[in-house]
Amino acid sequence: MILDKFHEECGVAGVFGCKEAANLVYLSLYSLQHRGQEGAGIAVSDRDKIRYEKGQGLVADIFSADKIDALEGDMAIGHNRYSTAGESHIRNIQPFCVEINAGPVAIAHNGNIVNADEVKRQLVKNGAIFNSSSDSEVIVHLIAKSGIDNLIESIIASLRKLQGAYSLLLMTKDMLIGVRDPLGVRPLILGKLVNGYILVSETVALDLIGAEFIREIEPGEMVIISDKGIESLHPFDKKTPKPCIFEHIYFARPDSMIFGENVYDVRKRMGRMLAIQQPAEADIVVPVPDSGIIATMGYSEQSGIPLEMGLIRNHYVGRTFIEPSQSIRHFGVKIKLNPVKSVIKGKKVIVVDDSIVRGTTSRKIVKMLREAGAREIHFRVCSPPTKFPCFYGIDTPTRKELIASSHNVEEIRKFITADTLGYLDINCLEECAGGGEFCKACFNGDYPMMSLDGGGDNPKSGC
Amino acid sequence: MILDKFHEECGVAGVFGCKEAANLVYLSLYSLQHRGQEGAGIAVSDRDKIRYEKGQGLVADIFSADKIDALEGDMAIGHNRYSTAGESHIRNIQPFCVEINAGPVAIAHNGNIVNADEVKRQLVKNGAIFNSSSDSEVIVHLIAKSGIDNLIESIIASLRKLQGAYSLLLMTKDMLIGVRDPLGVRPLILGKLVNGYILVSETVALDLIGAEFIREIEPGEMVIISDKGIESLHPFDKKTPKPCIFEHIYFARPDSMIFGENVYDVRKRMGRMLAIQQPAEADIVVPVPDSGIIATMGYSEQSGIPLEMGLIRNHYVGRTFIEPSQSIRHFGVKIKLNPVKSVIKGKKVIVVDDSIVRGTTSRKIVKMLREAGAREIHFRVCSPPTKFPCFYGIDTPTRKELIASSHNVEEIRKFITADTLGYLDINCLEECAGGGEFCKACFNGDYPMMSLDGGGDNPKSGC
Amino acid sequence: MILDKFHEECGVAGVFGCKEAANLVYLSLYSLQHRGQEGAGIAVSDRDKIRYEKGQGLVADIFSADKIDALEGDMAIGHNRYSTAGESHIRNIQPFCVEINAGPVAIAHNGNIVNADEVKRQLVKNGAIFNSSSDSEVIVHLIAKSGIDNLIESIIASLRKLQGAYSLLLMTKDMLIGVRDPLGVRPLILGKLVNGYILVSETVALDLIGAEFIREIEPGEMVIISDKGIESLHPFDKKTPKPCIFEHIYFARPDSMIFGENVYDVRKRMGRMLAIQQPAEADIVVPVPDSGIIATMGYSEQSGIPLEMGLIRNHYVGRTFIEPSQSIRHFGVKIKLNPVKSVIKGKKVIVVDDSIVRGTTSRKIVKMLREAGAREIHFRVCSPPTKFPCFYGIDTPTRKELIASSHNVEEIRKFITADTLGYLDINCLEECAGGGEFCKACFNGDYPMMSLDGGGDNPKSGC
Amino acid sequence: MILDKFHEECGVAGVFGCKEAANLVYLSLYSLQHRGQEGAGIAVSDRDKIRYEKGQGLVADIFSADKIDALEGDMAIGHNRYSTAGESHIRNIQPFCVEINAGPVAIAHNGNIVNADEVKRQLVKNGAIFNSSSDSEVIVHLIAKSGIDNLIESIIASLRKLQGAYSLLLMTKDMLIGVRDPLGVRPLILGKLVNGYILVSETVALDLIGAEFIREIEPGEMVIISDKGIESLHPFDKKTPKPCIFEHIYFARPDSMIFGENVYDVRKRMGRMLAIQQPAEADIVVPVPDSGIIATMGYSEQSGIPLEMGLIRNHYVGRTFIEPSQSIRHFGVKIKLNPVKSVIKGKKVIVVDDSIVRGTTSRKIVKMLREAGAREIHFRVCSPPTKFPCFYGIDTPTRKELIASSHNVEEIRKFITADTLGYLDINCLEECAGGGEFCKACFNGDYPMMSLDGGGDNPKSGC
Repeated sequence: MILDKFHEECGVAGVFGCKEAANLVYLSLYSLQHRGQEGAGIAVSDRDKIRYEKGQGLVADIFSADKIDALEGDMAIGHNRYSTAGESHIRNIQPFCVEINAGPVAIAHNGNIVNADEVKRQLVKNGAIFNSSSDSEVIVHLIAKSGIDNLIESIIASLRKLQGAYSLLLMTKDMLIGVRDPLGVRPLILGKLVNGYILVSETVALDLIGAEFIREIEPGEMVIISDKGIESLHPFDKKTPKPCIFEHIYFARPDSMIFGENVYDVRKRMGRMLAIQQPAEADIVVPVPDSGIIATMGYSEQSGIPLEMGLIRNHYVGRTFIEPSQSIRHFGVKIKLNPVKSVIKGKKVIVVDDSIVRGTTSRKIVKMLREAGAREIHFRVCSPPTKFPCFYGIDTPTRKELIASSHNVEEIRKFITADTLGYLDINCLEECAGGGEFCKACFNGDYPMMSLDGGGDNPKSGC
Repeated sequence: MILDKFHEECGVAGVFGCKEAANLVYLSLYSLQHRGQEGAGIAVSDRDKIRYEKGQGLVADIFSADKIDALEGDMAIGHNRYSTAGESHIRNIQPFCVEINAGPVAIAHNGNIVNADEVKRQLVKNGAIFNSSSDSEVIVHLIAKSGIDNLIESIIASLRKLQGAYSLLLMTKDMLIGVRDPLGVRPLILGKLVNGYILVSETVALDLIGAEFIREIEPGEMVIISDKGIESLHPFDKKTPKPCIFEHIYFARPDSMIFGENVYDVRKRMGRMLAIQQPAEADIVVPVPDSGIIATMGYSEQSGIPLEMGLIRNHYVGRTFIEPSQSIRHFGVKIKLNPVKSVIKGKKVIVVDDSIVRGTTSRKIVKMLREAGAREIHFRVCSPPTKFPCFYGIDTPTRKELIASSHNVEEIRKFITADTLGYLDINCLEECAGGGEFCKACFNGDYPMMSLDGGGDNPKSGC
Repeated sequence: MILDKFHEECGVAGVFGCKEAANLVYLSLYSLQHRGQEGAGIAVSDRDKIRYEKGQGLVADIFSADKIDALEGDMAIGHNRYSTAGESHIRNIQPFCVEINAGPVAIAHNGNIVNADEVKRQLVKNGAIFNSSSDSEVIVHLIAKSGIDNLIESIIASLRKLQGAYSLLLMTKDMLIGVRDPLGVRPLILGKLVNGYILVSETVALDLIGAEFIREIEPGEMVIISDKGIESLHPFDKKTPKPCIFEHIYFARPDSMIFGENVYDVRKRMGRMLAIQQPAEADIVVPVPDSGIIATMGYSEQSGIPLEMGLIRNHYVGRTFIEPSQSIRHFGVKIKLNPVKSVIKGKKVIVVDDSIVRGTTSRKIVKMLREAGAREIHFRVCSPPTKFPCFYGIDTPTRKELIASSHNVEEIRKFITADTLGYLDINCLEECAGGGEFCKACFNGDYPMMSLDGGGDNPKSGC
Repeated sequence: MILDKFHEECGVAGVFGCKEAANLVYLSLYSLQHRGQEGAGIAVSDRDKIRYEKGQGLVADIFSADKIDALEGDMAIGHNRYSTAGESHIRNIQPFCVEINAGPVAIAHNGNIVNADEVKRQLVKNGAIFNSSSDSEVIVHLIAKSGIDNLIESIIASLRKLQGAYSLLLMTKDMLIGVRDPLGVRPLILGKLVNGYILVSETVALDLIGAEFIREIEPGEMVIISDKGIESLHPFDKKTPKPCIFEHIYFARPDSMIFGENVYDVRKRMGRMLAIQQPAEADIVVPVPDSGIIATMGYSEQSGIPLEMGLIRNHYVGRTFIEPSQSIRHFGVKIKLNPVKSVIKGKKVIVVDDSIVRGTTSRKIVKMLREAGAREIHFRVCSPPTKFPCFYGIDTPTRKELIASSHNVEEIRKFITADTLGYLDINCLEECAGGGEFCKACFNGDYPMMSLDGGGDNPKSGC
């Protein structure tokens, strides 16, 4: 349960060739709601004009049946925005829709452009006007100013100027274009509809609307869907893919398939491996819901220690809670989690969470469990210590806020007041996720998408 | 996962003697949100006037910090209303606040008055005017018209005229009164605040705000909380308590203690007992989330068959989803649940749910799992066949809608298309819940609160 | 321009026998908007149920086309509520709709019941429950409790218990009933629709919807409109009618006909008479818009002094204006009125207003005109000094707030800083209004509807 | 009363050097509400960032006290947008706020750029991205792309590329810039605040907030207000000013001073002149309120025929009115105007309006008056026949919709069914407005701001 924001994630969906394109995108965004709850938008093309609707909050609250009906057209793209503390102005909600020389375009992306600020500075210097703080606008400006007549060529030339991690959807009047960056950091899935195609961040969206899974868009691939069918290009220099390991650890839904692996299975394996690497003598093993549940099942199976749902989550979480002035212990975490005293009392407890960011929430959980009567608390984490910021988002903690960047495991254990603390080894993690290389920059500081400089401690606008 | 409405449930909370009474009631209602999502209200007394705020939707959406701040006073009561299809007019949202001879009163109740219609008819005949279709208004009318000067006497005399199941909170300018009906059908808990007291439906509310659990209000007990302290009366003829067994099966949160038993433990025992009574040869046992999870853990532990989270719930459920005209298979259930194919595929699966109402949802779940690749599906239910309507609510299914009222187990199995179907025995159920007698009317038609007539097939306004 | 509230006024409209009853009532209320801007409601009967819609603000903002469409039925009544500072809770917005023994009823009234508090006290003592602070609820309670089976008889018996001034609309499932109190204080007009009838406060409503004027409902008359046609009763003791003179002075629209006289003509005559009684040597005569314009035209015609629109009104008045801390002179009045300096400068000015309540606004107007360069300011008022509160409303000024209750004309002149001040004589006023007796209680303290006691300084809930 | 849209008008206001800048701009926009009711926006600079708030509807509805308070800064500009049928999307509401090379800028303008489409096409071709259909965005693009480092130079160079009529406010972090086009078509007024300056469209805004009138900004003048004081430039080629005569006829409030003349006095003279040029034998002269009132007073004074307010305006006009299917005669005009039958009946009536656009409203007024009993109707118009579209706005009627473009006076008279019809002579009009040359393009087709081509029948995006 990441209460502290760490990575910036978003969800995207695009439909081509289906009369109810807006509705299918709407349902897709709904199933991808876990990737972003701050706001959402849908843009449709009726082959003549592009219209859009955006709003703040949850997909199901933003779009009424009337609004969906009004979005006529057989092409649509949509976007879920991650909740951020900062600039949550509606103008930053995607898709970003503008008129350029080539006609109307809408763009939505998941990820971030590492050199966006630099490119933006250059563009502004040359007279560009920016209306949002979204990277999408940078991409559109490059396309608009490329001076290349052919739109596809223009997009390719523009993307070549960008470094970063992105899964991008771009819609013109009559084309739906999907691109995944050469490193393939963020997922993008291609599905088949009865008369058309669909591009989405995770397979759960296909499940909900009954679309058929075709394949993942490959790292560095661009697909162009139009009335002529699907065309696939590989316009970028080939690189070793580095998908984001955190998709498996936390972001993706357990019922999704991502980077060729079922998230559920990966998490199970992570839990099993954690039990092998970081065993503990205990009566019960308790997940931090919801993200920790599947891994905890693996831990329990491997260790033979029974799993108990010793922390119950309240799913009706709202925006504002006023802590009474006669302050309530553990208020910040209690508003989301409540321990089951009868389960915890007198027990030696292993707690399994997906990660530790600032450590403050883990500390509250430990203290709350201790107060509920736990005799011992052994904190286990399904990932290595998070030492480096992800350069994927506004408002992610800077290095100094990440407890593991300046504290060793024993110091962290003391801070969170657990009896023992154990992390999953970084190499095992990759094995659990199916082998191959992943972007593990948040653990080891090795940022694959930054060819030039290591960046330093400077989180960037994204998603 | 009861998608079909069956019982009507609500949550209540009352605070006395705390400067931030409205905020504590607000937090209590938030933690009791699972008992009602249609609407909520809070009334406060500043010892002079009673003011209130009500709204439709979730507690956290209705009450802003400003609204809570404006509800000044050291006494407050609040109410969560269950989602109903029918008369969801704001005037039916409780607390019901009026001026009577004795001054301003606010009333909120969980439960229903079986003879409310009859009493109301009599009152209207004698010139009473009704503004809502809430039973609370009936209670207030009886009090207002009792002709008894002493308010407590008047309340007692009024409640004696009523048959039914209720946990009732009544607030005057300077008293907070809690009453539980003689059968004790609905729970009501007493807690201690630093300088005051709190009455709530479930102990989770005490957990959140850090109140100390004192005890449950006894069946037939009336507590009067005022500046003079707590007074306890037992003004009704003593009856054998009949708490509602469905509180343990489905309504209450697993981290609550109710009727003297931890819900978590009860559900575990139900699952274990179900495994003994209704075994099945299978590879995995899968809960229908969220209500079935704890029982499924019991089933897994007892049977040794590994539990897998083979159905993932989407928690961002909104109000309106338009099914595309190119219709989506299992749309109604898929909007809430998605099978994890990698877990289900090729497996013999035991599915554990808390109950079967109409059978249509169970059927959709079975078919969806079959499509996900399950080889066999053994449906197990932690309660006996639900044959009779609960006379506790608007819009509960009438008898003929309850599949078990007209079909035997084999017929139901065929309908839901499972390979086998097994229910928990009614007597075991009571044992799991800690022994003692419970209201099991929905299983056996024996309505304890209806002394006079059996009622027939006529669901009633409640909560 | 009465900025200070003085009388409480409302508008009512009822339609029988027209498929689009709600729409016609909506348009009627819109044309009667000047009689109340706080809130409005419409109730319809589809001959089976009564449904309603209410809201705060202006008619055109409350009712969307969708809402009007949803109010199906061929009978409707509606109500405009006057803006008050006090209890503007939505539950006080009429029509008041309840279920009584005789079935569903909706009631809306313009006026006030002088003995409402006393009757209410008695009713509450006998067990009645009140949900609003509206007099309408008192009327309904009396009807519900009359013990008389025949509804019409019951209404008559109930109204006989009430003293006061009212024009009342009452709707059952299949009857529309209009009643005017025996003194006929408030207007009520009967009109003909193609297939039905309409009852409204002023003839402007008939003009807008193209209904034919039939006649005014007589003082003490009750009309019962049903499928059987119109029945007229005179169930009350006959009294000398005392229509409210302020309807002509200020309330009614100048294009209405009221109490048998065109308001426009009456105001013209008042202005002419004022010029005769209160002449002044001046260059121009300037109306305080909008209410003073027609009378000023009369003053100008009679005196030969040219009328100039020396004060321009801003019609886009909103609810909240924050006066900057670097305070603005005359801010309170300037937000509504602006002097035309080129017209005022160097001139001897006669200002004509309809009445003076607290005197504070008149004082601001005089000072603002003086600052705009007026050489002399002669304030003329189309009515006598307002010395007594009108017992027709919440929040009207009490006696001591009425400047004329404690100051003579010369003292008022000094307060408002005018060079001269002149009022219209009370007897002339009645002549201008067409002769006959009027209620002039606000001028002479003679309250015709209070048979028993003079009341004292105790403004009452009304409208 | 122009019910048909004809010219596009807007209101602007800018404040420099006053702590409550947003509030003063808010009050200014409120007093300029007659210039635009579709939407409004306010941008403030706190010398570091520019923030803004925009909304649809009336100023007093868009901005709550909270919103105004949140707009901190001692500089602000604001804009009222005229109500249009077309693209009323919120992104077209001004001020237009962006980040350019020179930093953040906000821009608001009243008027239109005749060659905006052409310039925009060129910009888009060179890679510019447009987010709105507002001319303001074109201006900002030119500035951003000028390649000139000095912002003032850059603005001047950009404006030199534009042809059209505009009064422009531009705000940077620390400068407030006001520009009036070389022809001075739209007004712009400079006022003095205690510690700062204010620029507004009309003097009424100064009156409300108690600012001191300094002078009008001259045609072709640019003023730069900063902490260094006011600087005045005249960077454009000098032209003969051509202020818009319609400001005096209709747009401006009668209590404003504009182009050196009091609007009130100008309208009086127009009415007098109309009486001389277009006399008629009649009993009464009736204004079409509100715009026709002052001129009608002049007509009445000159002719000696008494003025009567024979048409009463409803000021509570909302957005949507559903005409009942049993259609109402003259519904469209009756929703705004109602004849006073007692005044009209049996009379020979002169009706005075400011202009005739399509003729349909005039026709409805004549028919409505005829039905109210007028014996003769002599229609008089305070301006010449409107034959040409104003190239100042979206959605103005094209030539063929202007009745006078294709019909002579006698034909128009027949269409509106008046007994006689008379217009004011074009030369007299200029005299009434104080002499000098005006833009009279809507009467004679001579468009002063179009140096190159006459344009044809192609109304343009503006304001």
